[in-house]
Amino acid sequence: MHGNTPEGQTKGADRALAERLLAGLGRPPLAIVLWDGSRIGPDESVASIIVTDRRALWGIALNADLHFGDLFAEGRIRIEGDLLAFLETAYRAAEGQPVPWPLRLLHRWQNRPRRNSLSGSRENIHHHYDLGNDFYRLWLDQEVMQYTCAYYPNESASLEEAQVAKLHHVCRKLRLKPGDTVVEAGCGWGGLARFMAKHYGVRVRAYNISREQLRFAREEAERQGLSDRVEYVEDDYRNIQGTYDAFVSVGMLEHVGTRQYPELGAVIDRVLAPHGRGLIHTIGRNRPALMNPWIEKRIFPGAYPPTLSEMAAIFEPYSFSVLDVENLRLHYARTLQHWLERFEDRVDEVRQLFDEHFVRTWRLYLAGSVASFTTGELQLFQTVFTRPDYNELPWSRAYLYTAGEEA
Amino acid sequence: MHGNTPEGQTKGADRALAERLLAGLGRPPLAIVLWDGSRIGPDESVASIIVTDRRALWGIALNADLHFGDLFAEGRIRIEGDLLAFLETAYRAAEGQPVPWPLRLLHRWQNRPRRNSLSGSRENIHHHYDLGNDFYRLWLDQEVMQYTCAYYPNESASLEEAQVAKLHHVCRKLRLKPGDTVVEAGCGWGGLARFMAKHYGVRVRAYNISREQLRFAREEAERQGLSDRVEYVEDDYRNIQGTYDAFVSVGMLEHVGTRQYPELGAVIDRVLAPHGRGLIHTIGRNRPALMNPWIEKRIFPGAYPPTLSEMAAIFEPYSFSVLDVENLRLHYARTLQHWLERFEDRVDEVRQLFDEHFVRTWRLYLAGSVASFTTGELQLFQTVFTRPDYNELPWSRAYLYTAGEEA
Repeated sequence: MHGNTPEGQTKGADRALAERLLAGLGRPPLAIVLWDGSRIGPDESVASIIVTDRRALWGIALNADLHFGDLFAEGRIRIEGDLLAFLETAYRAAEGQPVPWPLRLLHRWQNRPRRNSLSGSRENIHHHYDLGNDFYRLWLDQEVMQYTCAYYPNESASLEEAQVAKLHHVCRKLRLKPGDTVVEAGCGWGGLARFMAKHYGVRVRAYNISREQLRFAREEAERQGLSDRVEYVEDDYRNIQGTYDAFVSVGMLEHVGTRQYPELGAVIDRVLAPHGRGLIHTIGRNRPALMNPWIEKRIFPGAYPPTLSEMAAIFEPYSFSVLDVENLRLHYARTLQHWLERFEDRVDEVRQLFDEHFVRTWRLYLAGSVASFTTGELQLFQTVFTRPDYNELPWSRAYLYTAGEEA
Repeated sequence: MHGNTPEGQTKGADRALAERLLAGLGRPPLAIVLWDGSRIGPDESVASIIVTDRRALWGIALNADLHFGDLFAEGRIRIEGDLLAFLETAYRAAEGQPVPWPLRLLHRWQNRPRRNSLSGSRENIHHHYDLGNDFYRLWLDQEVMQYTCAYYPNESASLEEAQVAKLHHVCRKLRLKPGDTVVEAGCGWGGLARFMAKHYGVRVRAYNISREQLRFAREEAERQGLSDRVEYVEDDYRNIQGTYDAFVSVGMLEHVGTRQYPELGAVIDRVLAPHGRGLIHTIGRNRPALMNPWIEKRIFPGAYPPTLSEMAAIFEPYSFSVLDVENLRLHYARTLQHWLERFEDRVDEVRQLFDEHFVRTWRLYLAGSVASFTTGELQLFQTVFTRPDYNELPWSRAYLYTAGEEA
């Protein structure tokens, strides 16, 4: 075990490198503790980074974005103090700090993301979403099995309440009415599709390329007697057929990649009825930037959170009229906090399903995601759109807030 | 008078050209009636275009977007039937119709817009906004003198109610609280600035380069005893100084021009406090396109309505976080309809201030603007933004709809 193998005394060069790491971050209130116990950093710190071997120190010095996660997962780097507070402090410190050009070149090469061709997408989605339904069931909400940002009508709402409220929020933004047909691109475990059919009386065709998720989705639809109104299709969004009163996609765009946005726009243009309403719910950015490379490689291969201007490549070529953009950034921070709490509550079971490396990986991914949303590194955009000449619009957005919840 | 000078019989070429005009629009339900009374078009039509001379016919054949307005203003082209219905039909028909390349070249040269340098902006703004406060007072709302899209809380609201509701909507989106400082870029007759000071207890510095409007704004502030809390500055938005809790701009971005967006973003970045909130309210587009060239030349020189992706040039370089985009397209159609009704009610007074050419010009501009919003040619975006790491956000947008109006 690397973590328990001291390498003997540190050298002056090790301590200088640790110094330089903190200086490069603008000297945040963080300390580095090296393998021989020598401590670098301010007396008062939010947290300490315990580095257990020399190669780990060099790893984060060369490409912290990429290597920190692996070293943390391997136990060669530990955080003493609150992990979330550490991550928020580190993210804030790193934001806007210049990276020397030799490192920039290295990062460009090391951090390049995977492609999302038809087969690439299938592999990328399999990597994450086919980890096993039993695993996700341990810590997602027990009501509608949502693995996307919830919507908390108030700060004290539970995760279950907030996920149900999210589904209502989406359905009401789409102004679904009984008899409507809906197509969903990237349906997860099928919770939204079943919810729409059950509570809004619509017929849904839902696409997904994760086989594990679809198995669950179909079983649940069967169990709830919804199989006649919800059809789950194992296929790529690029192959969507038919014409629908509504197009909805919650948490798929992150996996599409900007190169494919014009094609996604063409798909929507092909399948949306003249009076159709569309909604895309996605993680986003304030300015263009790659996904954190460790997350992209270990957690979400091929993922990329777009800016609003990048998303315009979906809408502008087809003159879709963007009616409403709501940024739910802090709702995702809250959702992730709830997931992280439940994950830790069930961590023994997670460890039994996988191993300690997996536990550390997911702990860092969930905590890092909270920090990304609280520090404003990531956004959550809910975007509603229609055809340009569709005038049957709600007079204002008040109906989203004043009417009671649908039965 | 051209309109009353028949040119004798039409020739086969004239009638063929009129035929071709309608065919180029996909044969909409519109007729063309030539100077000798010959009628081209379907038996059933929404309206007829009366063309009084041969050069007028060639004018619209070569560049209808540019020449139709001038010919209409000169009385050489008249519309028989409902002007608004005609415009909506024509806009819908023209949307997406290909333009032959020789005409495209001609249009590119003829339709190029004016620049917005510091001096260019001053001339462009003077052209429209210094027509005289007496003129605008004839047909704008009598409450807060707003020459921008109103916000109708319900469909039966009056223009006055809707303009006051718009000001509240803007102030509440900005979450103004007593003691805040606000800077306004492009303040018109100063109505929003006075309203914010009076109803939200803030101090406002409001910039404008229209001298006529500022004269009115200062007189009104004096009359209402607000001069100690509202300062009107005759200067360009590029010269804004200071630091403020809120940045607001309602109906100015249309006059800025996309080349200047990075500079506008830099101004906002320079003057907005870390906890500051920003709001930009602007006419926009679903996809990039020049302003209608007649409107650009005769009504709003230098004007350009941006898409959301073009607006991103303001926000993305500074990592501003876009929190909320609301598209109020149909509210602007309703506002313009109210303005047009009042304009027609007071048309004798307008004619006395100017002349019949002016009356026709403005009739077409107002009616054409209604049609642009009802057909989805134009959008109205209200965009709220903050710094990326500002977390004192309202938990949801419900407060915009559930709380009572501020006193």
